[in-house]
Formats: sequence, C-alpha cells, structure tokens
Amino acid sequence: MQPPVAARPVRTTLPARYYTDPAHFRREVEHFFFTKWICAGRADQIPNRGDYFLRDVLGESIIVVRDDQPSTALAPGGSIHAMFNVCRHRGTRICETACGTFHGSIQCSYHAWTYDLNGRLIGAPHMDDVQGFDKRDFPLKRVGCEVWDGHIFINIAGAADPLRTQIGPLMEQFRPWRMEELRLVHRSVDEVKANWKLIIQNYNECLHCPVLHPLLNQMHHYLGAANAPSEATYCGGTMGFKEGIETLSRDGKLRRQYLPGLGAEEKGLVSYYSLYPNMLLTLHPDYMVTVTLWPKAVDRTELICEWHFHRDEIARPDFEFQDAIDFWEVTNREDWHISELSQAGISSRAYQPGPYSNRELLLWDFDQVVLRELGESS
Amino acid sequence: MQPPVAARPVRTTLPARYYTDPAHFRREVEHFFFTKWICAGRADQIPNRGDYFLRDVLGESIIVVRDDQPSTALAPGGSIHAMFNVCRHRGTRICETACGTFHGSIQCSYHAWTYDLNGRLIGAPHMDDVQGFDKRDFPLKRVGCEVWDGHIFINIAGAADPLRTQIGPLMEQFRPWRMEELRLVHRSVDEVKANWKLIIQNYNECLHCPVLHPLLNQMHHYLGAANAPSEATYCGGTMGFKEGIETLSRDGKLRRQYLPGLGAEEKGLVSYYSLYPNMLLTLHPDYMVTVTLWPKAVDRTELICEWHFHRDEIARPDFEFQDAIDFWEVTNREDWHISELSQAGISSRAYQPGPYSNRELLLWDFDQVVLRELGESS
Amino acid sequence: MQPPVAARPVRTTLPARYYTDPAHFRREVEHFFFTKWICAGRADQIPNRGDYFLRDVLGESIIVVRDDQPSTALAPGGSIHAMFNVCRHRGTRICETACGTFHGSIQCSYHAWTYDLNGRLIGAPHMDDVQGFDKRDFPLKRVGCEVWDGHIFINIAGAADPLRTQIGPLMEQFRPWRMEELRLVHRSVDEVKANWKLIIQNYNECLHCPVLHPLLNQMHHYLGAANAPSEATYCGGTMGFKEGIETLSRDGKLRRQYLPGLGAEEKGLVSYYSLYPNMLLTLHPDYMVTVTLWPKAVDRTELICEWHFHRDEIARPDFEFQDAIDFWEVTNREDWHISELSQAGISSRAYQPGPYSNRELLLWDFDQVVLRELGESS
Repeated sequence: MQPPVAARPVRTTLPARYYTDPAHFRREVEHFFFTKWICAGRADQIPNRGDYFLRDVLGESIIVVRDDQPSTALAPGGSIHAMFNVCRHRGTRICETACGTFHGSIQCSYHAWTYDLNGRLIGAPHMDDVQGFDKRDFPLKRVGCEVWDGHIFINIAGAADPLRTQIGPLMEQFRPWRMEELRLVHRSVDEVKANWKLIIQNYNECLHCPVLHPLLNQMHHYLGAANAPSEATYCGGTMGFKEGIETLSRDGKLRRQYLPGLGAEEKGLVSYYSLYPNMLLTLHPDYMVTVTLWPKAVDRTELICEWHFHRDEIARPDFEFQDAIDFWEVTNREDWHISELSQAGISSRAYQPGPYSNRELLLWDFDQVVLRELGESS
Repeated sequence: MQPPVAARPVRTTLPARYYTDPAHFRREVEHFFFTKWICAGRADQIPNRGDYFLRDVLGESIIVVRDDQPSTALAPGGSIHAMFNVCRHRGTRICETACGTFHGSIQCSYHAWTYDLNGRLIGAPHMDDVQGFDKRDFPLKRVGCEVWDGHIFINIAGAADPLRTQIGPLMEQFRPWRMEELRLVHRSVDEVKANWKLIIQNYNECLHCPVLHPLLNQMHHYLGAANAPSEATYCGGTMGFKEGIETLSRDGKLRRQYLPGLGAEEKGLVSYYSLYPNMLLTLHPDYMVTVTLWPKAVDRTELICEWHFHRDEIARPDFEFQDAIDFWEVTNREDWHISELSQAGISSRAYQPGPYSNRELLLWDFDQVVLRELGESS
Repeated sequence: MQPPVAARPVRTTLPARYYTDPAHFRREVEHFFFTKWICAGRADQIPNRGDYFLRDVLGESIIVVRDDQPSTALAPGGSIHAMFNVCRHRGTRICETACGTFHGSIQCSYHAWTYDLNGRLIGAPHMDDVQGFDKRDFPLKRVGCEVWDGHIFINIAGAADPLRTQIGPLMEQFRPWRMEELRLVHRSVDEVKANWKLIIQNYNECLHCPVLHPLLNQMHHYLGAANAPSEATYCGGTMGFKEGIETLSRDGKLRRQYLPGLGAEEKGLVSYYSLYPNMLLTLHPDYMVTVTLWPKAVDRTELICEWHFHRDEIARPDFEFQDAIDFWEVTNREDWHISELSQAGISSRAYQPGPYSNRELLLWDFDQVVLRELGESS
C-alpha cells in the first residue's frame, strides 16, 4: 500500500487580531515603523538651506531639514537631517507649521532655547548660572536619515543598519528611472478606515482588477503580472500594457516624453513595488507615483499619494499631468474603499482566515514577513 | 420577649456598574444580544425574492434576505434567511447599502466570490487550481431566523432553542391583533445616551407619567396598569383609557377602524410589553408601535421606533396616521431624555442603589432577570 | 587629598507619565480635586435665595445653591450649600440648566422626589406604603462648602479640614483687596489641550515673557518677580510695573479708581498666586482676574477666566472694563497655546526631563508638592 502524498494545506489569510487588536497594532508598528527605514518624503520638497517639513509618525513629530553641511557618518543623508520636534528644556514642541524655512537656527518660542540646523543647542537663556549645565548635553534628539535617488528615508530608532541593508537591490534595479530627477507636482491625502497591511495587500495583487477597476483593467491584462521573488523587506513585479496602451492615463495615451534613462523594455511596463512597511512605489514610463502609509490606529491609516514628473517635462510650456492624476484618483478611491470594507468584515466575529488563490501568493509572503519579524506563528 | 417580625428589606435599584462599566456591558450584551432571539425588523420590509435589509448588532452586520425556498429545519424562518455580511475569501464586508434587492445572488465586489440567497458559495474565480479547496466549505455563516406574525427575529449564536421557548405564551395572547396584517408606515431613529436597560425600565412603569408626560397622562390613569406576572423573558401589562379617550393620538380620537380581530375588551386598552432584550411592543386598538433597542456602548443605545397600521387602512384614500406619529414622538422624546438624565446621575460617585416604590416592581423583576441570567447577585 | 564638593544635581522637570498617563491622571485628580478645597465660583453669582449654579468636576455635577439658613457646623458656607446633583430615588440627574433659581425646593422631573434647599428630602410620592422607608435617610449628598471673601470653595470628599488649613495665611494677606466687594463682569471659557499642571507651571514663571508676551513684557520687568517662599498648598509672588505703567491694560493706563483698601505699595504691583489645585488669582490695583482649572482628561483642561471689578466702579455711568479684558485675552491666548505645545512635546518618546533654570524654581517646588502628596518620587 502506498501512503497518499501529503497535500499542502491551503494557504490562508491571517487571524483577525492582526487587523483588529490595538495591543497587537502597537507591537507591530513599534517594530515596523520605529526600527525600520520608512519613506518620509522627497528631497525636492526642501531645496534650500533651512527648508524643512514635519512628518508625523504615530504621534511623533519629526523635523526633516536641509542643512549645508557635508554628509558624515552621523548624518549619511548628506545635508538633510531629521530630528525630534521636542525642545530639550521643558519638552515643548518647537515647530507647528507643516513646512517652511528656518532662518539659520531653530528656536523654541517658549523660553528661546535655540538650536542650529544640525540640532546642536546654541542658545539657552539664563542657564549659565545653573551649576553643572552644559549645552553640549542637550542637542535635539536625532533620527536616522538617508536619501536614495531623491527619496528621504528616516529611521526613528536611529541605531539601525544603513538603508542599503533594507532595500539594496532596488537601488540598482531602479537606476534607469533616475528618480532623483523627478519633482513633486501633486499630492492627495486620505484617511482610510483600514489597517495599514490591508493597503499593502490590496496593492500586491491584481486578481481584483476586473471586478473593482474597470479603468485600470483596460490598461493591463489582470493575469499578466511578472512578480519578482518576494524578499524579506519588499516585494513587487511588473505589468505590461494591453495593445494600444502607452501609459496609465485616462485613455492610455502618452502625453509626456519617456523618462530619459529607460530602455525599450522599461517603456512598455509599470513597476509596482511595496517597500515594507510604508512605501508603495509605482513607476510608469513617463512618471512616478508614491504612496506612503501612516498608521493612525489599528483600523485607520493616512495615505499620502504623490505624483512626480521629470523636471524637464515640468519646464515645458505645454506640460500636462492631469491625465495621470485622474487615473490614479479613480483607481485609488476604488482601492481605499474596498480596503475599508475588508477592515469592516475582518472585524466581525464571523471572520475566519480564508483561502488564498495562487494569484495572491505575494500576500501570503507578506503575511509570513509579519509573522517572522514579530516572532509569531499564526 | 417577642422577636420582631423581620421586615422585608426595601427593594433597590442595581449598583452603578450595571449601567456604567464597559466590561460588564460586554458580558451583558454578549449574553442578551448574541445568545437570545432579538427582533430585527418586519417581513413586510422585504416582500419579494432577493429583497434584503442589513441589521447592525453591536458592530456585527447581518444580512436579512427573502429567498423563495420552502422553510426547512435549518431555516425555520421559511423563505427569510439571515447571515453574516462577511465574504469567506478575505473577509470583506459584502453589502453596504442598508436595504435593497439582490438579483438572484450575492456577490462580493472585491474578487467576485458569489453566493446564492441561501448563502451557498456558487462562484470563486481562480480557486479551482488550489488543491484541497471545496466550495461547499465556504458558505456565508448563518444566523438563526424565525418570523412571528410578521416580526423577524434573529439569533446570532445560531444554535439556540426555537423562538417559541422565549416568547411562546405571547404568540397566543396577541393573535387577535393579527400583527402579520400590519404594515410599516413610519420610522424614527434616535441615539440615546443611556444604557439599554434604562430604556426598558422607563417603559415598565407609569409612575413617572404625571410628571413627565402631560399628554399621555390625559389618556391613561397612571395608576391604572394591569400588569401580568413577570416572566423570565418578558413582562408587560395593559392600561385602559380615561373617559372619552379612544386611542393614543394627539386628542384621543380614533381616526382608523379598529384592528379587525379585536374584541370589545381589547378595543378599550393598550398593551405594553417588553420582550427582553430588545423589543418594546405597544399594541393600540388601531395600530402598533414597536421600538427595538440597539446598544452601541454601555451608555449609548440606538432606538428604532416604527409605526405599523393595518394594510386595509393604508389602502383607503383618506388614511390618516400623523396623529399617532405625533403622539409617540412627543412621548418618546420625554422618555429618551429622562433616560439620559438617569444615565448621567447613575454615573456619579454619589449614586447608590435607591428604593423602588410598589409601583415599580416590574423593574425590580427585570433587574433580577439580569442578575440571574448573568449568574450574579447584586 | 580633598574630596570634591558634591555638586547639587540639576533640578529637572517631571517624567512624562505625570503629563500623559491616564492612570496617573485619575490618581492625581482623585487626590487633588476630590479631597482638596477647590474654587467653584463667586458668591455674587447667586445673590438671592434659591439661586444656584452647577459646577462639573470631572463628570461630577455639583449644585451650589443659596439658602437663607444661618451658617452651621455642617454648612460653614453660611447660607450657601453644595450637593451632588443626583436624585436618591433612581439616581437621575436632577438639574440640567447651568444656572438659575429654585423656587423654594428642588424637584426631580422623573418621579417628583422633592428636596429643600438644604438637600433634605421633603416629598417622595407613593413611597409611604414601602415598609421601612424613611425620608430622613435620603437627603441629597452633601459637599463641603465655604466662602472666603466672596470665593466659593467646595470640598467633594466632604470630611476635610476647614478651608483655613489650606489657604490660611492668604486670608490675611489679601484683606486689603476686599475681594468680597468685587463683582463678576466678564467670563471666557476655553478648553486647552494640556494637562492641568502645565497651566499652573506656565503661570508660575515669567522667564517666558520676553519671547511669548510682547504686550505683558511692556508692563513688567520679566526678571522683577518677588516670589514668596513656596507653601505646600499654594505659591506666588508680586511684580512691579515698568516706568509709566499703572495697571495691566492695553496701554498700561488706569481707567478705574484703585481698589479702596489698598496702600501705596499695593497700588504699584500685581499679585500672582496659584492656589493648588485649581485657582490662579491675579490681583491688580484696580481689578481681579481669576482662572479656575477643570481637568477633563490627562491632556485636556477647561479654563474659566473671570474678570471682577469693584461694585462702586461698576455702578458709575462711565465704567470701563474692555481694556482689562483685552489685555488678558491676548496674554491668556499666548499662554494656553504654548501650554498645548508643551503637552504635545512631552507626549513624545523623545521627551526626557529637562533642566530648570533658577528662574523656574517655583515650578520645581510645585513638582515636589505633587510628588509628596501622591507619595511618589520622580
């Protein structure tokens, strides 16, 4: 007698607590958003010395500012630094306005403690007569900061491995798109009532495209994704166009030059990559879309979607971009909304892990990353 | 020497935690709203095959839908079924619109999993090549469902005793009103900042009528209630009218025919019954009012008040109903508001259980039901 | 060899949990707001028999009412009483309107239980036939109440030492201002997103004045405070005016007579006193400002700012007061806002206790009061 070949058990989604338990959420975001590199924005948002923007990470306000100092081991972001927005005197939040320019120094408006653009304390009125006080002990607390082809990444724990250890192979892979030459043209911000992982999972499969995305489905063959093998820190793949389609726009027509570094193959596809935990990077033949994820609660995530175009295109008098905005506004709305319905359903006592099809294996891979990183088994 | 006769201790209200403690609330609603039969609505809301409405029970979304299959052991509601609104694939909430019509099947808009009106999975794209997958394993999860004289009751635990075990005697008692011939005409929905039990307790006594209800007090003698002995699952009684009053309306005048099955005695009274945990059933000589209770938090309850009239009356060209709406809108507002003040006061550290009068004994009986069902003593 | 003289360690602010932990907050307000005397308002708000106002203390609604009974040991507030706004029958909140007049008695609108202005139960319909019921057992629950120079203080625990034990020396010190002759003219109410202690700390130093308060800084020398030694229950000091300044108004000009009891020295200064836990008392040569603090959550405090003027001034046809309102509206806005930024920054993981200058020692003293009262060390 022959023993039956053991069938692989059906791969299933994660238990509900991964999407609904506030305690799990705190553990998870602590791990993924405070010890990993996360994408904070773009270098072209702060072109000049003193320019800054604030980034809120789960209630932590981070100042990202351009200095003119050369890059150092401590500040591998080169002249861009990131630090906590917290005065070292009595803990006051220093800066309120979402973006702007510091004029040479950063001053707290409570008692005028003053820091240079590198965070060093350079002024502290009436502290000289406090015995044992030394300005050098009270710099603004630093956050890790690196820039990759124009993308600013921060690492709040600060003591992490360099960014390369997290996304190294992508650094070579995406050179042809010359992302550092692209400039932010449009931004939309949405708060979506869904766990952050549901946004990533929604992005990682196109099985839903025929039902959910009538427009997108005119552009790609929904079964046509060429997925790269999943990595521990990212996953993704490419999709080619249907006959007659040149890029993702309302009508599939190209209204801009191809990005200057692309070869023939790259002109015929879109790259979709999830850089865990917070960046969805979509590279088209003629523009780039980034979505960054900012969890607010176990069931709520802020999504910042930004459209970036080549600086030479932007400079043209007949520069057009509304077609690309429109395309993704429509498609994002569909994705954000279904993600909210997923969150609602998974929160039900009736939910139990359900079976993945073979078209959803990148999702299962991501689930395993979550389990492995948290030292759990589902 | 003669020992004194032991006086019965004064009966008092429940301790504050029964009205203010979120942990107690979760235990209590789990018991009362998820293992008991609760009234979900009326069969005449979904007259045709595929018609459905959604009912939210403490965050659980339930689909109540009319099928045309005969009643079975699994579905004693006959052709009306209830099931969780959760797709078995990735847990998506399937249906968003509060009521409507399914055209033969129920389809999830994410990946097109499709169910028949009985909840059986009949379509699951791209799942055929998943080894070990069988559609029969993934029906929508069922909820108990029965219909009594037009009232749809659901039982979320699903494995409960039949509805008759909970309200059996009322099934005979209320036959003369022929409730299945009544049709919904008007609905009002209020969120009241009070624990659900305070709504029931307010309904169970008329001692407050002279102070709180100037209009209602013109209709009934407030001490004139004839209460039935309390049961473990419901309580109630009847009240006759004051001289010259025919029904509960702005002026006490009757503007419709008596309900066709009533005898002389029933034409002269109003029946007030609390069907624990969520239904207040008020039967007038010429119409019916139902209030269903939907707890949202320990101190917040949604109340759905519905006015139902006989189908023959509704068909008349001179059908009037605004008098009945107005009467109860006024009276309900008074009751909902004082219940909110009860909640506010009971939440004070100064609150301690207070003494019931002999006119409030149905309330004390209900308190004992709560204690007994939860296996507690006050 | 000579051992080095041990340097005093730098004094620092409290750890974050004192400003951010809800559990600490509950312990802290329980101690400070429920067992200490707190300022509830002014006697001139309720001049006639039956006049009352409600005061909400962390969700507890307290009735403060004027009776015409003489002062007794039980009611040392003289004819003003304070009691919980909770009916002793079924716990209903009796009174909803923030202020008004009771006509001889206080009646619950649910079942007409009725109390006299001293809180004694004098009517309870249908309770006579409940064996063992005695009206004398069910008075409204009393709260301690005393009046000091027109300020009404309440003590919710009720069994406390008299008010004199808490603020005794101030009773003599502030006699010259004859505060009982002052009358409320204007009130502003703000909810500030900051812990209550940050409001007190902001009030207790003027080191921030040059940066934060351009207007106030025209009036006082910011280093010119003469602080009294800190006490366990209050702290404060005085500040003189700059040359040419007569009082705190838009332009520093005096538009009213000096308060009638003041000597030459008192006409030249402003007294700033924090009466822990909830009163900031600012006495000017010609008017008084009180701010009372009403914590709502660990990071939220309601502030009631009131301007009081002498009754004789108010009676003049040319009475002016807008200058004083304007001055403090501007200055308060600045203080409330920076306190919110303190709360935001202290809530960061980057916050750690920071060093006080020697100009902030009253704040450190207050921190020690908090620690000592709660039996903690930082």
